[in-house]
Amino acid sequence: MDELTHFNEAGRGKMVDVSDKQESHRVAIARGSIKMKKETFARVAAGTMKKGDVLGVAQVAGIMGVKKTADLIPMCHNIFISGSDIDFEMDEKNNRIGIVATVKNTGQTGVEMEALTAVSVTALTIYDMCKAIDKEMVIEEIYLEEKTGGKSGRFVHSRKNV
Amino acid sequence: MDELTHFNEAGRGKMVDVSDKQESHRVAIARGSIKMKKETFARVAAGTMKKGDVLGVAQVAGIMGVKKTADLIPMCHNIFISGSDIDFEMDEKNNRIGIVATVKNTGQTGVEMEALTAVSVTALTIYDMCKAIDKEMVIEEIYLEEKTGGKSGRFVHSRKNV
Amino acid sequence: MDELTHFNEAGRGKMVDVSDKQESHRVAIARGSIKMKKETFARVAAGTMKKGDVLGVAQVAGIMGVKKTADLIPMCHNIFISGSDIDFEMDEKNNRIGIVATVKNTGQTGVEMEALTAVSVTALTIYDMCKAIDKEMVIEEIYLEEKTGGKSGRFVHSRKNV
Amino acid sequence: MDELTHFNEAGRGKMVDVSDKQESHRVAIARGSIKMKKETFARVAAGTMKKGDVLGVAQVAGIMGVKKTADLIPMCHNIFISGSDIDFEMDEKNNRIGIVATVKNTGQTGVEMEALTAVSVTALTIYDMCKAIDKEMVIEEIYLEEKTGGKSGRFVHSRKNV
Amino acid sequence: MDELTHFNEAGRGKMVDVSDKQESHRVAIARGSIKMKKETFARVAAGTMKKGDVLGVAQVAGIMGVKKTADLIPMCHNIFISGSDIDFEMDEKNNRIGIVATVKNTGQTGVEMEALTAVSVTALTIYDMCKAIDKEMVIEEIYLEEKTGGKSGRFVHSRKNV
Amino acid sequence: MDELTHFNEAGRGKMVDVSDKQESHRVAIARGSIKMKKETFARVAAGTMKKGDVLGVAQVAGIMGVKKTADLIPMCHNIFISGSDIDFEMDEKNNRIGIVATVKNTGQTGVEMEALTAVSVTALTIYDMCKAIDKEMVIEEIYLEEKTGGKSGRFVHSRKNV
Repeated sequence: MDELTHFNEAGRGKMVDVSDKQESHRVAIARGSIKMKKETFARVAAGTMKKGDVLGVAQVAGIMGVKKTADLIPMCHNIFISGSDIDFEMDEKNNRIGIVATVKNTGQTGVEMEALTAVSVTALTIYDMCKAIDKEMVIEEIYLEEKTGGKSGRFVHSRKNV
Repeated sequence: MDELTHFNEAGRGKMVDVSDKQESHRVAIARGSIKMKKETFARVAAGTMKKGDVLGVAQVAGIMGVKKTADLIPMCHNIFISGSDIDFEMDEKNNRIGIVATVKNTGQTGVEMEALTAVSVTALTIYDMCKAIDKEMVIEEIYLEEKTGGKSGRFVHSRKNV
Repeated sequence: MDELTHFNEAGRGKMVDVSDKQESHRVAIARGSIKMKKETFARVAAGTMKKGDVLGVAQVAGIMGVKKTADLIPMCHNIFISGSDIDFEMDEKNNRIGIVATVKNTGQTGVEMEALTAVSVTALTIYDMCKAIDKEMVIEEIYLEEKTGGKSGRFVHSRKNV
Repeated sequence: MDELTHFNEAGRGKMVDVSDKQESHRVAIARGSIKMKKETFARVAAGTMKKGDVLGVAQVAGIMGVKKTADLIPMCHNIFISGSDIDFEMDEKNNRIGIVATVKNTGQTGVEMEALTAVSVTALTIYDMCKAIDKEMVIEEIYLEEKTGGKSGRFVHSRKNV
Repeated sequence: MDELTHFNEAGRGKMVDVSDKQESHRVAIARGSIKMKKETFARVAAGTMKKGDVLGVAQVAGIMGVKKTADLIPMCHNIFISGSDIDFEMDEKNNRIGIVATVKNTGQTGVEMEALTAVSVTALTIYDMCKAIDKEMVIEEIYLEEKTGGKSGRFVHSRKNV
Repeated sequence: MDELTHFNEAGRGKMVDVSDKQESHRVAIARGSIKMKKETFARVAAGTMKKGDVLGVAQVAGIMGVKKTADLIPMCHNIFISGSDIDFEMDEKNNRIGIVATVKNTGQTGVEMEALTAVSVTALTIYDMCKAIDKEMVIEEIYLEEKTGGKSGRFVHSRKNV
């Protein structure tokens, strides 16, 4: 079995040395969703600038979350981010909002954790904005859908084609 | 339908005014889990100080995440936290690690978002520590299990008794 | 002439001791504006969720900026904020967007700097969002319009009634 | 009319993808000022290490503010800063302190927002240090005076030669 | 032997629950020093606003460090600080600069770690400002000199009367 | 005598311009220790995952502290870190725990301050975790043991061979 690279010989956490890795263009796409009551979903979906745009606030939080990843995840490198974006998929049938974060960088490591963090912070913000009317919301299934760049090459999550 | 309290009259986000709310002891318990391959689960479960304790690192990250909640969630109040703790539940049958965060404060608002953030950051850190051997991990079903304190009284999520 | 309270006997900066001050409800209102080209103003004013809502992003940044005040201003106390909101005033005649930040707390000190910081961060964000089409923008006249609460009582800026 | 680059197709904020931009040496100079009462100006101007050096504290805050720009401005890239400095211009006739921030980097984007943020944080700190004796201060006219580097080339604000 | 309160039953770190503790006025005084070459000491001691005031920059850093304590120390509570100050003691005979940080709060816990952090950040900043001319500097003996307030009452370090 | 590079012509702090410096691989090793009572040392040394692993928490704090260096030290550049690790040396005879931090980057400046900050935050965290049973602990002698890379070449502290 492969080693967990984030530990040193004493078994304690370390920030992996990436000095010798080559720079490459990297793209990570993470995905998650938040399920809510029918009424809550309707309220978010009907969001207008007049009544309040829940997803607009969540989007800003998610983008800013990308930049806080290394501050949240102990062994994560602090890296320069080339770009990041978030898309929402409104699943009306299931009252579920899909969140897709795409993060890019050029460097020796990254950007899986940044994309996963973006999805998490976006979902938490939707929860916060709606919790006055719905505390039953559930943040569901956050995972790395795809990653390109880096030595290990392209990764596609087994759920992608399901 | 109830209003989303986090918007002002122009439909833009605001930090809700809690000046007139009474202080109360508040406790929030949030829950989530992360599912992984059998080998990854075995590796985490076997974590010792010699080989590297994944959950030890994740626990520290989760506790620190509590204190960063207001920095991550735009309309969330910055509050004094009285205490916070995280527990893990090893579900060997399903190769799933349950994460339970308990956060307490005494104040006019809080601490749902802090507990949910703690679970999220803990799960993200487990992902980060294990991603060298398993990129298929999925963070699953983060929700507020229970909350006491505050005007609205006790809340128990419908999943609790399932 | 009165003393600058933020210096100690050696003439170096200190965080003023407020241990003996009484808690009071405090409200500060700060105001500022950003002037831009006619076309830029028109673009911002026409902001819709479809085309992009500049002020929506700036509002979130301003609210978050309130919580970062003590991190930016060296001798400023870190305080619990009870509520904060931002309003925009569209001055079509002068292609100028007015920014009004209202911040509240209950405590021994605050919240002038928080309100002024909110206006500054909001204006900077509008600049950032529009700088691709207009680098000539000018952030104008940021000041404390009004403050209530605290030992010194109510303050109203001389510009308020102009 | 040119597009606002900070929005995605859904009209929501994004961090622009700069992956394909070439690295270049970049310098941005931003300028602003703070106007105060005659007595306040005299006090700041007479600042010595014995009595307290307002501008010394403000300078440190401004330099540190440069490094917090991406944390404050939602769609702003987090970048490595090569150097930054702040100069003060004492306008005794008008009791106004001019603030000039110069920020440099080598990269694919930057450093206008960093220079503008430096000026803003410096001005806010002067306000904070002096507010015990003068709440009438006004932060005036913050703008980008000059920028070199990057694809769009040299920019000089129309006010520079006035 | 007494228990380490920062661990939960599973042996993992937690933020101790202080909900039931009474608020009290608390003062902590921490002390440390930094030893340097004779020439470096002379340069710092001769610091003027013209030539550059090393201790002025270090003082600002130390005060700001107080506010970052809970962000640095994992199990430390985030608390409201009532006041903080730093004094320097110039030991010309030994080319050593003494650093004394005094931090106050009113609350259920604090403020030892804040005072110790202030001394550490102040010393690190002196090192940074002088490292171009002296890399041999040594940060020496940082400890809690005295603490009042809280259930455990007054503590005085055994070194105080030496 | 050499100049302090962190000051501008007006004698105020600046972030040194490193635009013209060449990138190089850099490694800094900093060292420090914390002395405690015999019982405290025994408790830490006996740390197990069951009873609580003080050094495990301190290690995570130290690694995260590396990433916060530029946020703490005013004139310090914000840089990308390639890797960082912390080792402990248990000096049973003197009840002293040695802390060795190794930090690497490839760039135009760094990484002395990052290594020194890592040692400081690690030591502060050990203090925090143990202060319930021992307030007499002393953080001792933090210094830069060795540095390679950069124009000035290799530096070895005079204490290294003692």
